[in-house]
This record gives sequence, structure tokens and C-alpha cells, in this order.
Amino acid sequence: MPHRYFETNLNPNDKINFLTGQNAHHLANVMRVKKGEEIIVCDANGNDYFCTVNDVEKEKITVAINTCKKSVSEPSVSVMLYVGYPKQDKLELIIQKAVELGAIGITPFFSKNCVVTPKKEEQKNERYNKIAHEAAKQSGRGIIPKVYMPLNYTEMIKEASKSQLALYCYEASENTPPLHSRVENGVKTIAVITGSEGGFTTKEADFAQDENCAIIGLGPRILRCETAPIAVLSAIMTLTGNLQ
Amino acid sequence: MPHRYFETNLNPNDKINFLTGQNAHHLANVMRVKKGEEIIVCDANGNDYFCTVNDVEKEKITVAINTCKKSVSEPSVSVMLYVGYPKQDKLELIIQKAVELGAIGITPFFSKNCVVTPKKEEQKNERYNKIAHEAAKQSGRGIIPKVYMPLNYTEMIKEASKSQLALYCYEASENTPPLHSRVENGVKTIAVITGSEGGFTTKEADFAQDENCAIIGLGPRILRCETAPIAVLSAIMTLTGNLQ
Repeated sequence: MPHRYFETNLNPNDKINFLTGQNAHHLANVMRVKKGEEIIVCDANGNDYFCTVNDVEKEKITVAINTCKKSVSEPSVSVMLYVGYPKQDKLELIIQKAVELGAIGITPFFSKNCVVTPKKEEQKNERYNKIAHEAAKQSGRGIIPKVYMPLNYTEMIKEASKSQLALYCYEASENTPPLHSRVENGVKTIAVITGSEGGFTTKEADFAQDENCAIIGLGPRILRCETAPIAVLSAIMTLTGNLQ
Repeated sequence: MPHRYFETNLNPNDKINFLTGQNAHHLANVMRVKKGEEIIVCDANGNDYFCTVNDVEKEKITVAINTCKKSVSEPSVSVMLYVGYPKQDKLELIIQKAVELGAIGITPFFSKNCVVTPKKEEQKNERYNKIAHEAAKQSGRGIIPKVYMPLNYTEMIKEASKSQLALYCYEASENTPPLHSRVENGVKTIAVITGSEGGFTTKEADFAQDENCAIIGLGPRILRCETAPIAVLSAIMTLTGNLQ
């Protein structure tokens, strides 16, 4: 399998293109790519360009586009993950795994029981997006899922509930319909909402329900805050035929 | 929710029982439990005993059993996870998540493309089992899933194929039936086999197939070696009604 890079400035109308910046550095100095080698350049818009390396300079790689293939790795369903802001290492794990599992984006949010408070979020967001970029590259995504700036709880619920289906994972839910009965054939946009270490308050869950979120439980075992989103994404991808 | 401890030496025929060792230390010195408080003591055999603390000494907690309830958290399907031996931090993550998601046990194995080689495995195994114990306690399991000593590849396949269904997750699989068509109603024992960072060789996959393992793919996105087992366990628990 050739190495694969994202290049949003690719011009598919020109046979010859140039890779610069991080990509050029990585290809030239880390991978020590040679003239004549094949690489894949993805435009982060679902198109994979199979290219031949024509020239290697320190800060510039010249490639010739041979063919273009539609990326096959994007799931048929758009899943946006809203995740109660956990400790940073956990959020980073969640971002990496969510990207591998096909999420279209990740939005952290602050809720009453969050143990962390907003701090240098712009700086952190840059780091989170780097993690998403790396995971997208490694897992062969056709897009680079974005990590958005954190929202407050009300903003988050208002935004999430615009999806065709907003799944609200609530530990204290009782007699809620199972996940598979919620994920019907044909649903195209799903929001998944999971809590932080401290979970949700009854008031928060009530508000979500009032705003048309579908409350779901994840079984009798207590999942850690970083496990729940990974499990739900896996479940949704399984139920919609995107993990096979 | 009262604190919950595993105590394999519990005697349910005596109303009065004693907790010693780690449990006593944790209750007395970390949780600073008081006389009259309620705790749950699980016998690691699927039974939860609701107890009242009668006395707190430094190394001994006296409890009175009030009621016993069958643990509701054990899944209806027995899933044993066989995982290609990855770097240690990844294996530890897999163990923790597999226990949360309901696996009955975890067995690492060595295969051709493993990047790690056996080293101080007895010592490591002790640590792995501590992680499983902690995860079982935290997630409310009714048993303590065991982490077994690593097997070699042939031993592993021979053992895994004794399950009613042995799912072999293979990145290079083509046109294999989807996971949900494999997990039929009524299947009680499932083995899940996932590779290490280096994946499986064609020869290894062929051998698994000859030994009646069912080869499955996990979709067009490349999942990291620690993501695959978590995703498959989530999928199986979803399909068998154990994640709702």
C-alpha cells in the first residue's frame, strides 16, 4: 500500500502538483521517498489521487497524478460525536478512535459534572485537530474530521438535535428503547451525545429529552466516559453496515 | 450506589463476614468507610451481596449480609478475546476496555508479525490481571475476567476454534460475510481473534480458515490493533442485545 497524504490544495486539473510543508518534510526526510515511487494524495474531499513522485527536493515534492479514485472509506451515515469534556488524555483517545471508526466530527462540551474547566481551548483545539488529521491519514479516511471548539451544554443540545437522530447516552436511563430500534434504515445524520467522567444530571437529561434527543442506555455494565463513545460509534457503524 | 468489592472467600451461609487484605485497606484507609454504611460484596461468581458495615478495623472490616442479588451485568454470550500481542500500553487499554464491554477473558498470543517478544510474562500477567480486576470492579461485572498467559499462534487457533463461533478479524479479507450474519441467535460462546500492530500473514489467515475460524473484515477504514477488539466486542454486544 503506497503512503497516503492529505493535500487540500491539490489541483486535479493539473497533471503535475507540488507537495510542500509538513507533507514534503515527511516524504523527503522521514520516508525518504524516491523518484518513481507511488504515493496516494487525498484531497480531503473524498478523492484519492494515485501519483508518481517526479522530483524530491527538501521542501517540495513534485508528483504526477495518474488516476483518481473515489475514497471508499467514508461511511454511508454522518455521525457527529458530542462528548462531555473529559480529562485531556481521554479526549485525545476519543478523538483518535472516533476518527478511525468513521465519525464526521467531534465537538466537546461542558456540562454540570465536568471535572475540567475551559482553559487555553484554542491552543488545545489545534492539538486535537492534529490528532484527528493523523488518525484520518492512518486509517485511510477520505476526509479529515474536524474537532470543533467546545460548546456549553445548551448550545450543544440545540445543535445536536438538528440531526435526524440525536442519541443521548444516559447511564441512569430506564426502559429506553434499544439502540438498534433507534437507528432505522435510511437515517443519514446522527448525533451521538456522551457524558464526561461525572455523567449527566437528571435536569440535563430531561432538557435533552424535551429537545427531542432519544435517550438510550448502554447496558448494565458501567462504561468509562472514553469507552461509551467508542462503543456507540462501533454499534452504529455495525447496524448501518459500515463495519464490514 | 454503594461501593462494590470482589471477595472470592465470602461465605454466604454466615451472616457475618470479614473483609481483609486490599479490600479492607481500601475501605478503611481510602474510602474511610463508617459503621452502618452499605457496601456491595460480589463473590465474583455472579452474586452481589448487599451488606452493612458492622465494624471497621485497620486490616479487617466486619460486614453483615442483608440480601443477595444475582448480578445483572453479565452478558448472555461468552466472548473470549484472543489478541495479537501489541505494545504493553495498548494491551493494557484493550484489557480494560474488553472487561468493561463484557468479555469473559483475554488471551494474548504471539504471531509472526508481532513487534514484541515474550519477556517476563509471568510478572506482566500479574499486572494485566490487576487491570482486569480493577475494570471489573469499576464497571460492575459479576465475575472477574481472567487474562491468560500468552499462547503461540497454533495453540491459540486450536483453542479459539473450540468455541461455537471463532471470528478472525482480517484486514486483507475480501468478500467475507458481514459480522452480523455470523453472530446468529442462540450462539453462546464466541472467540474473537484480532491481530497485533503488524497484522496477520496470508499463511496465518489460511491456517485459521482451515481450522474453521470465520474470517471477517471490519470495513474499509484501517483500525489500529487496539481499536479492532474494542469495536468487535461492541458490535457483538450490540447484535446480541447486551449493549442496551
